[in-house]
Amino acid sequence: MKKYILPSFMAILALCVNAQQALWGGSQIVSPEIHPDNTVTFRLIAPKAVKVEVIGDFLPTTKAELIEKDGVWEYTTPEPLSPELYSYTMLVDGLKINDPSNVHRIRDVKSVSDVFIIPGERADLYKINDIPHGTVSKIWYNSPTLGMDRRLTVYTPAGYENSGKRYPVLYLLHGMGGDENAWTELGRASQILDNLIAQGKAEPMIVVMPNGNAALQAAPGESSLGFVAPSMQLPKTMEGSFETHFPEVVNFIDKNYRTIKSKKGRAIAGLSMGGFHSLHISKEYPDMFDYVGLFSAAILPGKDVKSPIYDNIEGKIKTQFQKKPALYWIAIGDKDFLYQANKDYRKLLDDNGYKYSYFETPEGHIWKNWRIYLAEFASQLFKK
Amino acid sequence: MKKYILPSFMAILALCVNAQQALWGGSQIVSPEIHPDNTVTFRLIAPKAVKVEVIGDFLPTTKAELIEKDGVWEYTTPEPLSPELYSYTMLVDGLKINDPSNVHRIRDVKSVSDVFIIPGERADLYKINDIPHGTVSKIWYNSPTLGMDRRLTVYTPAGYENSGKRYPVLYLLHGMGGDENAWTELGRASQILDNLIAQGKAEPMIVVMPNGNAALQAAPGESSLGFVAPSMQLPKTMEGSFETHFPEVVNFIDKNYRTIKSKKGRAIAGLSMGGFHSLHISKEYPDMFDYVGLFSAAILPGKDVKSPIYDNIEGKIKTQFQKKPALYWIAIGDKDFLYQANKDYRKLLDDNGYKYSYFETPEGHIWKNWRIYLAEFASQLFKK
Repeated sequence: MKKYILPSFMAILALCVNAQQALWGGSQIVSPEIHPDNTVTFRLIAPKAVKVEVIGDFLPTTKAELIEKDGVWEYTTPEPLSPELYSYTMLVDGLKINDPSNVHRIRDVKSVSDVFIIPGERADLYKINDIPHGTVSKIWYNSPTLGMDRRLTVYTPAGYENSGKRYPVLYLLHGMGGDENAWTELGRASQILDNLIAQGKAEPMIVVMPNGNAALQAAPGESSLGFVAPSMQLPKTMEGSFETHFPEVVNFIDKNYRTIKSKKGRAIAGLSMGGFHSLHISKEYPDMFDYVGLFSAAILPGKDVKSPIYDNIEGKIKTQFQKKPALYWIAIGDKDFLYQANKDYRKLLDDNGYKYSYFETPEGHIWKNWRIYLAEFASQLFKK
Repeated sequence: MKKYILPSFMAILALCVNAQQALWGGSQIVSPEIHPDNTVTFRLIAPKAVKVEVIGDFLPTTKAELIEKDGVWEYTTPEPLSPELYSYTMLVDGLKINDPSNVHRIRDVKSVSDVFIIPGERADLYKINDIPHGTVSKIWYNSPTLGMDRRLTVYTPAGYENSGKRYPVLYLLHGMGGDENAWTELGRASQILDNLIAQGKAEPMIVVMPNGNAALQAAPGESSLGFVAPSMQLPKTMEGSFETHFPEVVNFIDKNYRTIKSKKGRAIAGLSMGGFHSLHISKEYPDMFDYVGLFSAAILPGKDVKSPIYDNIEGKIKTQFQKKPALYWIAIGDKDFLYQANKDYRKLLDDNGYKYSYFETPEGHIWKNWRIYLAEFASQLFKK
């Protein structure tokens, strides 16, 4: 039998594919390059550009200029960066682009950022380490209340498939403009849980991440709407529909996963709008969740919003606290635009002697904080 | 209880988040815009650019120039586009960028392209339609042979969770430079299966998409290597390791999913390198798969490659065909660089009277063809 293909299949493939498919072929340079001392170099080849900048959350001033040398634009951070997951984009003569040399990008609402991780300390929780990994599934449930099939992200911990055990469940909700993908992408929820569980710092648990936009089936590009543009301006987000339908999510999960089907096996938490949803769902169904986490939460609905969900809020909160939740946890950054609303809400809880825990961090309404809050909150769940 | 936050939470959120997080805020224009007649307009705001082009697989000449008017660069296809999933990028003064107005992007090996779908005909199989949807999971298995935990994509059909039924399994393999994400991204495997099953054209089946790079745990960014650059130049891809370890994948799936644990309930198919893997795995384990699909397959290993897997190839193929597989299906494009190798291989099969089916399409070694092959192949599986 003669040799039908040449030894260098790879070389031929590269050649032919380039000829047939003009889109292939990546970058010739490395960017970002993380040096051993944790300084980082960004590079771009843009021969005709006049000005190239990098915009990123690691820069004290948010922007830095790249300098051209031998055809390659370059910028190296003057100081090592602290351990963290960072996001950035580039500006070429004012045009915002993703770094063509970095394929690791995460969408947050309408913008796609390039990402990198400086390892160490807390940022090691955001990395994929050589430890057992849970499973992340995209699964659809039917909501009679909302009249549609809807998409969920479900994390099951390592060992779930091979055990007959029942697991507790954390319901984890995204913010405005987000979707069922947000917590596993910028939120690094599966990495955080894998790492905490492997370190013995969190109990093995299922994490359920639904889509909090009651008018939508799924994230942009993942529903029958097709490849639509994401939007912050969605209908039916903070007007009661999501909260009303929520028991359908819990029933679906209890039916299809080996869960602990009782209050002591359930937590609910969310960021911003998701914190608002967590507050109102947990008070509406006071026998459903023993653990509640409000991360940079919005507190009250808009004053024109009418829904039975928002009737008698104080009375429902009273009922909820009379039933003594195992943990009611409020976290916020000291520069968050919702800081005062949370302070006022804590005052209400204090005035009534309702027991909660409070966790304050620097900075504002950003993913860096929400990843920290998830790690802190998840470590306190289901311990008894 | 006073109103702690203002009614226009959304407006404040947008304002504050912009102030705190410079990366937020998307595009002001629509691109691509698909018109009712299926012409498409591409737009870009790049005030300082001299030349803006779009590169895409929908263009007869691969490149077209955008024209600037009132600050917006624009190009509209002169003719309606045929139904298809299309990929494109933009060139701004020679710098290749993703369309900043389109968040829907898919990575293929080292390059990230913007995508859109012109619906109709076969392309409707690539859309998410209002039909029951299967579940897509990322799950890790241990390979003693390769000495690591490895990541798999698993599609389970709609209804899997709620039935006690056993399902047949299609093992679906990617090409060189690809990974366990390739078939569900550009390959649209979950959409194709959802649609074919809903239309009654394919049997409900599980689809298992492993990572064919035996040296790696998972796709770039999804393993303990961190956010590394993807590469076509990977070790241990076509030298027998992947084929040798493959029964571990089958055992893992049979143990963790409700499968039909016999030859008649198993198919294996792959594109390019994955076709090569399918050929060699199916002949190595002739009692394992009743259905084999070679999509634009490489046929023989490089002449310097030594592995027991590639010993006595003709003898093993003879054994395989003596056992009469239910379907041995070869598909290739008439401009594929592997066309001649496949023709020679078909001659070998013909000369020996081995029964197979053959499906030829126009064009070459491209995803457009592989999506078609998957739809054609999946429709023929597990019918008896």
